[in-house]
Parts: sequence; C-alpha cells; structure tokens
Amino acid sequence: DGGRTESLDYEVIENFAYREEQANRGRLFVMYQVAVKWFFALLIGIGTGLAAVFINISVENFAGWKFSLTFAIIQKSYLAGFVVYILFNLLLVLSSVYIVTQFAPAAAGSGIPEIKGYLNGVDIHGILFFRTLIGKIFGSIGSVGGGLALGKEGPLVHTGACIASLLGQGGTTKYHLSSRWLQVFRTDRDRRDLVTCGCAAGVAAAFRAPVGGVLFALEEVTSWWRSQLMWRVFFTSAIVAVVVRTAMGWCKSGNCGHFGSGGFIIWDISGGQEDYSFQELLPMAVIGIIGGLLGALFNQLTLYLTSWRRNYLHKKGNRVKIIEACVISILTSTISFGLPLLRTCTPCPEVDPASGIECPRSPGMYGNYVKFYCSKDQEYNDLATIFFNTQDDAIRNLFSAKTLHEFSAQSLLTFLVMFYTLAVVTFGSAVPAGQFVPGIMIGSTYGRLVGMFVVNFYQKLNIEEGTYALLGAASFLGGSMRMTVSLCVIMVEITNNLKLLPLIMLVLLISKAVGDAFNEGLYEEQARLRGIPLLESKPKYEMRKMTAKEACGNRKVVSLPRVVKVADIVSILRSNKHNGFPVIDHTRGGGTLVIGLMLRSHLLVLLQSKVDFQHSPLPSEPRVGARPIMHSFSEFVKPVSSRGLSIEDIHLSSDDLEMYIDLAPFLNPSPYVVPEDMSLTKVYNLFRQLGLRHIFVVPHASRIIGLITRKDLLIEE
Amino acid sequence: DGGRTESLDYEVIENFAYREEQANRGRLFVMYQVAVKWFFALLIGIGTGLAAVFINISVENFAGWKFSLTFAIIQKSYLAGFVVYILFNLLLVLSSVYIVTQFAPAAAGSGIPEIKGYLNGVDIHGILFFRTLIGKIFGSIGSVGGGLALGKEGPLVHTGACIASLLGQGGTTKYHLSSRWLQVFRTDRDRRDLVTCGCAAGVAAAFRAPVGGVLFALEEVTSWWRSQLMWRVFFTSAIVAVVVRTAMGWCKSGNCGHFGSGGFIIWDISGGQEDYSFQELLPMAVIGIIGGLLGALFNQLTLYLTSWRRNYLHKKGNRVKIIEACVISILTSTISFGLPLLRTCTPCPEVDPASGIECPRSPGMYGNYVKFYCSKDQEYNDLATIFFNTQDDAIRNLFSAKTLHEFSAQSLLTFLVMFYTLAVVTFGSAVPAGQFVPGIMIGSTYGRLVGMFVVNFYQKLNIEEGTYALLGAASFLGGSMRMTVSLCVIMVEITNNLKLLPLIMLVLLISKAVGDAFNEGLYEEQARLRGIPLLESKPKYEMRKMTAKEACGNRKVVSLPRVVKVADIVSILRSNKHNGFPVIDHTRGGGTLVIGLMLRSHLLVLLQSKVDFQHSPLPSEPRVGARPIMHSFSEFVKPVSSRGLSIEDIHLSSDDLEMYIDLAPFLNPSPYVVPEDMSLTKVYNLFRQLGLRHIFVVPHASRIIGLITRKDLLIEE
Ligand SMILES: Nc1ncnc2c1ncn2[C@@H]1O[C@H](COP(=O)(O)OP(=O)(O)OP(=O)(O)O)[C@@H](O)[C@H]1O
Ligand SMILES: Nc1ncnc2c1ncn2[C@@H]1O[C@H](COP(=O)(O)OP(=O)(O)OP(=O)(O)O)[C@@H](O)[C@H]1O
Ligand SMILES: [Mg+2]
Ligand SMILES: [Mg+2]
Repeated sequence: DGGRTESLDYEVIENFAYREEQANRGRLFVMYQVAVKWFFALLIGIGTGLAAVFINISVENFAGWKFSLTFAIIQKSYLAGFVVYILFNLLLVLSSVYIVTQFAPAAAGSGIPEIKGYLNGVDIHGILFFRTLIGKIFGSIGSVGGGLALGKEGPLVHTGACIASLLGQGGTTKYHLSSRWLQVFRTDRDRRDLVTCGCAAGVAAAFRAPVGGVLFALEEVTSWWRSQLMWRVFFTSAIVAVVVRTAMGWCKSGNCGHFGSGGFIIWDISGGQEDYSFQELLPMAVIGIIGGLLGALFNQLTLYLTSWRRNYLHKKGNRVKIIEACVISILTSTISFGLPLLRTCTPCPEVDPASGIECPRSPGMYGNYVKFYCSKDQEYNDLATIFFNTQDDAIRNLFSAKTLHEFSAQSLLTFLVMFYTLAVVTFGSAVPAGQFVPGIMIGSTYGRLVGMFVVNFYQKLNIEEGTYALLGAASFLGGSMRMTVSLCVIMVEITNNLKLLPLIMLVLLISKAVGDAFNEGLYEEQARLRGIPLLESKPKYEMRKMTAKEACGNRKVVSLPRVVKVADIVSILRSNKHNGFPVIDHTRGGGTLVIGLMLRSHLLVLLQSKVDFQHSPLPSEPRVGARPIMHSFSEFVKPVSSRGLSIEDIHLSSDDLEMYIDLAPFLNPSPYVVPEDMSLTKVYNLFRQLGLRHIFVVPHASRIIGLITRKDLLIEE
Repeated sequence: DGGRTESLDYEVIENFAYREEQANRGRLFVMYQVAVKWFFALLIGIGTGLAAVFINISVENFAGWKFSLTFAIIQKSYLAGFVVYILFNLLLVLSSVYIVTQFAPAAAGSGIPEIKGYLNGVDIHGILFFRTLIGKIFGSIGSVGGGLALGKEGPLVHTGACIASLLGQGGTTKYHLSSRWLQVFRTDRDRRDLVTCGCAAGVAAAFRAPVGGVLFALEEVTSWWRSQLMWRVFFTSAIVAVVVRTAMGWCKSGNCGHFGSGGFIIWDISGGQEDYSFQELLPMAVIGIIGGLLGALFNQLTLYLTSWRRNYLHKKGNRVKIIEACVISILTSTISFGLPLLRTCTPCPEVDPASGIECPRSPGMYGNYVKFYCSKDQEYNDLATIFFNTQDDAIRNLFSAKTLHEFSAQSLLTFLVMFYTLAVVTFGSAVPAGQFVPGIMIGSTYGRLVGMFVVNFYQKLNIEEGTYALLGAASFLGGSMRMTVSLCVIMVEITNNLKLLPLIMLVLLISKAVGDAFNEGLYEEQARLRGIPLLESKPKYEMRKMTAKEACGNRKVVSLPRVVKVADIVSILRSNKHNGFPVIDHTRGGGTLVIGLMLRSHLLVLLQSKVDFQHSPLPSEPRVGARPIMHSFSEFVKPVSSRGLSIEDIHLSSDDLEMYIDLAPFLNPSPYVVPEDMSLTKVYNLFRQLGLRHIFVVPHASRIIGLITRKDLLIEE
C-alpha cells in the first residue's frame, strides 16, 4: 500500500520563490487572507449544512414512503408487504453500491479514518475528490434509506471535509488552481485548516451539535491544533446549526414531505429523569463495562471481517461487491420484517391521553407502540417498534421516558443480538456507512435492558429506562470509538439535557478503560488496516531508549550535489521512491556543507518546465537577485489527494539530459535538524507536533553562532 | 522586572542521570505513574470543589447576615442602617486587604494572567505558594462578601492552580520533595499538566460548568495541549461538578445558613425566550458592538489605572494599599446604599401568584422587586433591586424572564455608569478580584436596556428582556477578555439553555472583532503590564523577513569548556544572568564541537554538592559507566515558583575554586538546533509549540548522518 499514501508537506519551504513572494506581500494582503479564510468558513458551514439537510430530507422521505406503502399493503397481505419492503430496500442499496463501485470507490465506508489520516499528515489518493463527495452524498442516501444497519453521520464528516477541500482549491479542476484570489490556500497547511473546519461542520450537521463538532474535530480528528483555528471552527459549526435550523423551520410547514415530523436527531429527553441516587451508580458502572466489552468485540470482529474482505472478497472485483451489498440488504430486510412477525403482541398499557402518547399509534405516524401483525385492536408489537422502523425513530423510542415496560426483555435481547450481528456484517461493505447510529442503537438496547432490571429491582418511581438507554448508547460508542470529551458533549447536545453529564462521563470513563484493555479504537484499527500510517500523539515507550541515529539505521543517504546533471536527477528519481533529498555543496576549503532539502515533487516541476536548465556545471550565482526567479510559488503546489507528477510523465530529450540545474534557489534551506544522539522520544515530539515530513540527523555542530531565548522572540511590532 | 520572572524548563534534559533512570524504569512504573496522575486529578477536583463550596458558603452567609441586619435596622432608621452597612462591608474588605498585603502579596488580583504566564512557560515568583492559596481563599471571601465590584471566579481559577501545584510537589515544604512516590511530578512539564487540570477545575467550580472549564483551560490559559490531557482535565472538571452538586444538595436542607437559597451561579433562564426572529438580529448586533466598545474601554482604563498604581501608589507601601481598599469600600457602600434612596419607588405590577414572583418580596428573601425606602406598601425600588443586593442575585434579576418593565431605563443607566466606574476603580486594588461577575453585571445592564427598547419597538410578546441581558453579558465579556468558544459554552452552561448558542456566538463574534480593533484582551494587557513575557500562538508578521541569526544579534555567546575550573564557573555565573550555557569540547583533530547545553540551576546544584569536583583538568572518562553518577535526577529539580538556588548562596573554599568539573554527564546533549538562515517564523513555531527555553543557532551541518521520515517513527511495540 506504500504507493497509495504519501505524506503531506506542512512545512514552509523557504526557497527563493517563497521569500520573494513574502517580500512582495503587504499588510493588506494579510488582511485579505484573513477575510477569505472567514468567508470560506462561512461557505463550508452553509455547504455542509445544506448537504446534511438534503441527505436527511431524502432519507426520511424514502423511509417514509417505504413504511407507509408497506403498512398500507400489510393491511391486506403480509406477504405482498414483505416483498414490496424487500424490493424497496434492495433498490436503494443497489443504487448506493452502484454509485460507489462504478463512480467513487473512495466513498465507501465512513471516511473518518481517512480524514483522520489526512489531518495527521498522510494523503490518501482520492479521498477529497469531487466525485467522492457526490458518491458520498448519494450513496449514503441509498444505504441509509435502504434500512441497512449503518448511519449517515460518518459520511457527513467526510462530506464536510470534501466540501472544505474543494472550496479550498477552487473547484474540481484538479490540475490548476484557478484565479489569483484563491491562491491563499495553496499549501497543505492551509488546506488542513479548511478540512478541520469541514470535519467539525460535518459533526455539527450530523448531530446538530455545534460544540460537539468543535470538540470532535479537536479530540478525534486533528493532530495539530492552533488556537486561532478554534474560533473559526466554532464559527463554521454555528453556521451549520443556523442553516439546519432555518431549513427545519421551513420544513415544519410541510414543504419537505415526510421530513420534519420525525428525524434529524435531537432526541430530546428533557422530560425524563431529573435526579439519580447513589445506588444507581452500580448498574451504571455495569453498563460501562458491558459497553467496553461489546465495543472492543465490535472493533475486533470488524477488523477481522474487513481484512478478510480486503484480502479475498473485494479483490474479485466490483461485481462481488454489488452482490455482497444486495445479499446484506435482503438479509436485513428479512430479519427486520420477519422477526417481529414471530413475536406475539402485547396489550396496550393505559396511557394518559394528555401525554400525547398513542397506543397503538396511528399508521404512518412516528412514535411508540407500533401495531404490527397483532390480532386485537388494543395491542402493539414491541419488537416491531424498534426493528421495523427508521433508526432515528427506534432510538427515540428506546430513549423515551414515561414508557416503562414498553419493551419486553426478550424482544430487547433478540434485537440486540440480531442488530449487533447485522452491524458487524454490514461494516466494510462497499457503501457509505457511519457507525454512530448503529452504535447508539446497540448501546441503548442493552442500556434499556439494564434499566428494566433497575426499575424492577429498586422499585423506585423516578428511574426512567430511557436514561439507561442513553447511558448504554454512550458506553458503546465509548467502548468502540474511544472518544471522550467530544462524545460526552455530543450526547448532551443531542439529548438536550445537561444534567446527565456526570453520569455520561462516568460511563465513558469505564467503557473506554475497559475497551483500551483489549484493542485500539475503531478508527485507529481501521486506519492501520488500510495502511494509513497514523502517528499517535504519544511516542512509544521503546523510543526513550533509542537515539535518532539508531532510527535511521545504516541506510546510505541519497543526496544531490548543488549543481546536478539532469540525467543524474532522472536516474536518482527512477532508482528510489524517496520524496526528499538532502543537497550537499562544497565549501571553498574543500569540505562539504548540507545546504538544504529538495523535494521530489519540486524536482519534477523543474524537470517538466525546463526553464532552469543551464549548460555550465557551475553555480549560476552565489546569491539571489542576479538571476530572476522563473517560477512563482504556486507552480510548486501539488493538487489535493492526487498523485501529482511522476517521473514517468516527464519526457526529456538527450540534449536535456546533458544539461545542469542549480538547485540552490529551489531547495528548502532550513530543514529541521537534530543531533545524532537525541532520544527518539524527542525526535518524535518534534516531528509530530510540528507536522514535519523530513528531519535531518546530523553530527554535533562545530560552532555556535548564537542562542535564542524567549526574550529574543518578543519583538514589538 | 526581569528578575521576577524566569522561564520554565519543559524540555527533557537527557543527561546521564536521566538516561540511567529511564533504563532502570520498568513498564510497571509507567502504569503506576498513570495511576498517580489520575488519582491526583481526582484530588484536584475534590480540593477545588470544596474550596469553591467553602468560599461560596462564607460569602453568601456574610452577605446574608449583612442584608438581613441592614433590612431589619432600616425599618427604624435609614441612617443607622447605612452606618451598619458601611461598617460591615469595611470590616470584610479590611480583613481581605490585610491578609493580602501582610501575608500573601501574590494573591492580589485575579491571578489569571499569572497562571496564563505559568502555562506559557514563565515562572513568576510566589504565585503557586501555599500562602498564596490561603490568601486567595480568605481574601476573596472578604472582598466579595464586602460588596466590592469584583467577583470570585478569577480567584477560584488561581485557587485551583495552587491546589494542583501544591499537590504536585507534595505539600508546602518548598525545598524538598518528600517521599519517593511523589517523584512522578518532578519536571516542570508534569507540573504544567497538573496546573492545567487545576485551572479547568477552578472554572468548573466557579461557574458549575465542567465543559466550559475544559474549554477555558484549552483556549484561554494553556499554551500547549496534549490530547492525552484532555480527558484527564475533563475528569477533574466532572469531579468538581459532582462535589459541588453533592455539597449543594446537602445545603438545601438548611445546613449552610444563608447559602443554598440563592447564589452559586446557574442563572437558569430556561423558562425564558424560546425563539427569535430575524429582526431581532439587528439589536443583537448592536449589543455586540456596544460590548466591544465598552470592553475595550474597560481594558484601556484599567491598564492606565493599574500602571499608575504600580508606578506611584503601590510603591508607597502596604499602608497605602490598605487605605486605598478601605476608601473604595466606603465609596462602593455609599453609592450602593445612597443612590437607591434618591430613586422614587414604582408601583408593583400585577403578578400571577402562580408564577412564584412576589412584589414586593418579603424581607430576607432572594428575588426581584426589593422594597427599599418606599412610602406605599405595594411598591418596589428598581434601583435597589440590582444595586442593594448581592451580585449573583442582581444578575439573576437582570436575567429574569417574565418580568417585563421591571426596571426603568433611568435606573439601568444610572447603575451602568456607576457600576462601570466602580469596577474600573476597584480593579487593581490589593485584594483578590475576578472580572467575570462584574463584567456580567455591566453587560446585562446595557443588554437589558437594549432589550427594553426592542420590546417597546417591535411590540412582540415572546421577546424577553432577560435574553438581551444575557447577550449583553456575553458581549461585554467577549469585548473585554476576548475569549470565544469557552465563553460561549460557559454562558450556555450557566444559563442552562442550549437554544441561545447561535445568538451568543453572533454577539461574541462581533464584540471580539470590535474589541480587537482597539487593544488586546484584558489578560494579555495585564500580563504585559506585569512584565510577564507571554508568547502568543502566532508569530509576529515581521518575523517572516528575519532569520534566526539576526534574532540573536551579535552578542558573544558565553560558553563553557567541557572540563571547567570551578573558579571559572563562579565568575561566569556572577558576571551575567543567563540561564543556559553551551558546552564546547575539543575534538582530537583540534576542532571544536558543541556537545550540549548546561543550565545555570544544574551548575549551582553541582557547585553546592561538590561531590563531582576533581583535581585533574582532563575528562574523567569518555563514556558513562566508568564512574558512577553521584546524583539522582530529583536533585536537579527546582521548586515551583520560587527563586531556587543563587550563586550568592554557595560558599566555596579557595581549594574548591582550584578544582575542576567535567560537565559531560550533566549537560543536555541534545538541545534543539536550527540553521542560521531559518526564518524567525519557523524558529518561533518551534520554540512555542515545543515549549523550549533555549535554541542553538548553528551553521549548516557539514555532513548528514541520516534522514528520518514518518516510516522511521512507526515502531511496533
Ligand atoms: N534521501 C534519502 N536517502 C536515504 N534514505 C532515505 C531518503 N529519504 C528517505 N529515506 C528513508 O527511506 C525510508 C522510506 O522513505 P520514503 O522517502 O518513502 O518516505 P516515507 O516514510 O514513505 O514518507 P513519504 O510519505 O514522504 O514518502 C525511510 O525510512 C527514510 O528514512
Ligand atoms: N549563554 C549565553 N551567551 C550569550 N547570550 C545569551 C546566553 N544565554 C542567553 N543569551 C542571550 O541573552 C539574552 C537574555 O538571556 P537570559 O539568559 O536572561 O534569558 P531570558 O530570555 O531571560 O530567559 P530565562 O527566563 O531563561 O532567563 C537573550 O537575548 C539571549 O539570547
Ligand atoms: Mg513514501
Ligand atoms: Mg532571564
């Protein structure tokens, strides 16, 4: 997989072109730059918000049509209803898998591991293309609308990131950055900031949780964080919240079909449990442990399954992927329709008509107490209430307060086992798929189960099963994804209830600790499997005892002389895959001097343009100014998540090969260097925290020119 | 002021002692270390929570006694009531200023600039002492209870930080770190993490806002952030929330006197405005602008006043400081008692008895509609409702919904002008003082004023003046402190209302932008004034054009040879104030080699212990092992926020002076180096992001040993 991923260049390459440009820039340009950044944050917010609204409207409408059609038909024939239900789902899933396989292969899965990799400094081919964006949006409508055991939240994060990245490079034209005013975002560093905004916007849109979005981006996705970015990211999230809110207000009046009555998250549980007693902490801790165990198991099972898929199944081509998705769809439909049929119905409890709860609910409406295959009138089918329903509504039912004993333990257990299996099997098929909502489903099922026991055991009135369902959801997500602060805040925001925060934290602390005892988090496992070399924030323990010199082994360094023959460059570039080459010059005294770092991609640009070729093997001029710089800085920019130039693309005549290039104006004269005996922990921190790509290991300096302390950096403007 | 502050050493000094210790440590020790860290987080949470509860109980009780006494007396004589009120306040303020001036001078002010400095890498003498903690707690009880225009929130942050730091070094015994199990927290780096936890705990305790606390620590206070820390910090905040909640539950039953009925923040406004229309955005933007202007003005005025105080008034000694505080106290009492007297009372509106609002409220109760110097029975004094009250209750009244037209515009304006002046004058006097609550007071006053106009102008029923008061509060804090995300979240958490988040953001965006046009944030201005050299997160624009070599000027580097005569060390240490010295060795070939960095504090430890003195001027042994290391790593640890050893403390005989020390085992062999032509922007980022103290500027290397990329750092455990 080595060829598929490549590091990003977050470093500022201070070559002559860059320095010249810096010198020409005024203060006005800096202000303009800031303004554009904020404007882009605004656009990202609006774009992601609209994408989320679009996806949700489509999904809710497809699901709404599906369920109302099926309900209408099953009044006459259950078999006909079953067939229609299966076909409807199959069609949607087929559309999704078709789009993904034929058109946007990078749109499969949740995309969060890839985005995480991107923000960690690894570029994966194709993840931020326009076609990936389109595939993600339409693919997730199909897969979620088709009732598979997956969610649309992960894909929304990827969508936000794609929108941000595309805005940043000014559209789909991959190989040229359009007008001059867009040249603000040419470096990987600027794009990283935009993508961070996009991620936060995606989470904010998925859960309508602006603060949660910021924290998710901060905790889970990004690897570097600058505090200037925080406010901009928050701004983006708030814009998303406003856009979504406005759209939903507009939909309330019935403009959007089935959308508006039910879904789009915010499972408000503010009417529920207000207080908790100390005895309840024990069952809550149990929930945490279950969450850790089931979450770690989920990670492990999906890891095996995904690696099997990658190595066998998906190697066989797109046909297999399509068939696989269809089989999973039929399986899911059959189980979600068939199992409730086997379940005998329960008589309706007496409900207070003032509470607004209906039993059984009228067909086509959202709510609890679904009537499905019941012989009597005042009966409902508790398994159908969660299984034969959209996931959003099922979760709402599981979280709901004031509905004690709605579900039987048997139904919940059946659902748990079935849905868990489905979620594991669905994970990794070639459709856009998020793990948040399935995780919440699984967690809230066993949470509610524990809640039922607590209600029966403690015999207290103010305990709500819905609260336990919420804690269960938190525990499963914590046990699988291992997020902490952001998950807490997201849970609080989606349930609109600040009071449960300490309980959620307790549960998360436990489930994360339990999960960590077994394996890594879901995204890290998946990233590793996909060959994305993530650098964690903490250096490994072994590194304390290693030095920088040991880390780079005894490999011979492939370096370039300052003035180099074109033929030599070509043969060096052909003979290895390295992306950076030290440039070594000779001093007058006959010694050598490491004068900088030359990137492969910059060399390729020079070879392609040919304007810098010279006949003489001598340095053109010791300093800049004598010869004008032929290149603007933007020529060296590599397009996002594409492979860029390769040495095979470049055609040189034999005359060209005999010429020379003086690299001095193009190299990065100030790469980071470390002394050979620095411990690898320190090197790691340097590399990770500054987001580097290359570090030179050099002997101790022979001479010290000066010393910089805090005082030297306090320059008054 | 240069002598008062000194940089912290966040770097790992990889000397032989350190390496030996690393080698001796097992995996078990690492686990133990983690466990201790979490345990300390727990302790910090509990400690800070209890401190907050203690401060609040005391303040509320003092204020309760004061007001009930005064109310009782003014039934008979307003003059007598006035005198008692003034004396009561005076006594409390006197106690506060006495404690601070005589006992804990570092406890004056809010302490946030100092803590910010500490976490930025600057140690200020005395800020984390035990006596500072005590002074802060008791001082702020006096100053807040005494009715001055200041708050207890800033001091609580400082309190949290002190508790954390004291826990970290195992108590007050400054000059020796007690038992072995505490040696986990010996480096400045570990202490920094603890102090970060303490800060977050302080905010969480002050506002009962755990998420806000984490974000405050992240955005406003810390300069470096490791994602591992986030979860621990959040844990601490949650513990605080639980402790405070438990204590308050216990106090509800009347165990804590006056505390429990009123204060301790959470100004719940969930009963208020649910929705907003687009027309309202204009007046809200106006609030933002006012907030930016008034906030920037506040910063500027306090800056002038504080610098005047520092340069003239407070130079005259503690007597002047005490007199000043007393004068301010008398002034505040007179205004808050006298002004409401001049105000004619308003007849009570008709209130729905079901709403629980009383008019006029019964004496000794908390709530709106205070009766004060009114001739008729069914009247209340609107100015007294906010002025002659504790600040928490005044804010609650200003935020309150369903109390349209409670205040007249005239009263609000009077209060605004008076309180603003008082807040400016009080700032910088020698008592513990926070700026949050006064800021909220000021902001909510003009916010409510704008709200009144909106209500009158738009004539809509669902607009609440309280909502505007809240936005006003946010705008003033944003305009003065320039916090963003954390302020948003804190405002949401203290009002327990998620729906207003986008509005708060809008207001903050505007007020911060307006404020930034005039000056820096309050804490930055104050830090600069106090000579705390904060490094901002962003390098200055000018640095792009400067190189590392230019930054260190033409100063001659003061360096040490590897084997150095004791007399030379002494004379070098005496002759300058530098804290780090490059060590230069001679190679066999006769050239020189920069082998590392020696810290002044480590040199002093060597001079004091004398065990490493040798007679020969030759290196003792080229490598470790031959001669055992005489020192454990902990001997080199400097106590927190104290001056540590000084060269004057060390007494050497003339024999000692003739001896030599081989520095090789004690120096840091891998200091960070940069090539001379690296731009200062890059140097700044390196320095700031890794939290360095010294960077060596060296010529380009003559030779490259190796090259480290991402792949080399992916070591499997
Ligand atoms: N110019 C070079 N000379 C010698 N060894 C090199 C050189 N550049 C890199 N290496 C080494 O070769 C190995 C693979 O390097 P490669 O250049 O492929 O980098 P990489 O880790 O894949 O990062 P990137 O994503 O930038 O390609 C690394 O261990 C690295 O230390
Ligand atoms: N050993 C040295 N030789 C020459 N100049 C030095 C040396 N150490 C520091 N300097 C320079 O002297 C100035 C003041 O240095 P000083 O050592 O007081 O550091 P500082 O900025 O006050 O930091 P600290 O808080 O660590 O004391 C700085 O500009 C620094 O570059
Ligand atoms: Mg590579
Ligand atoms: Mg100094």
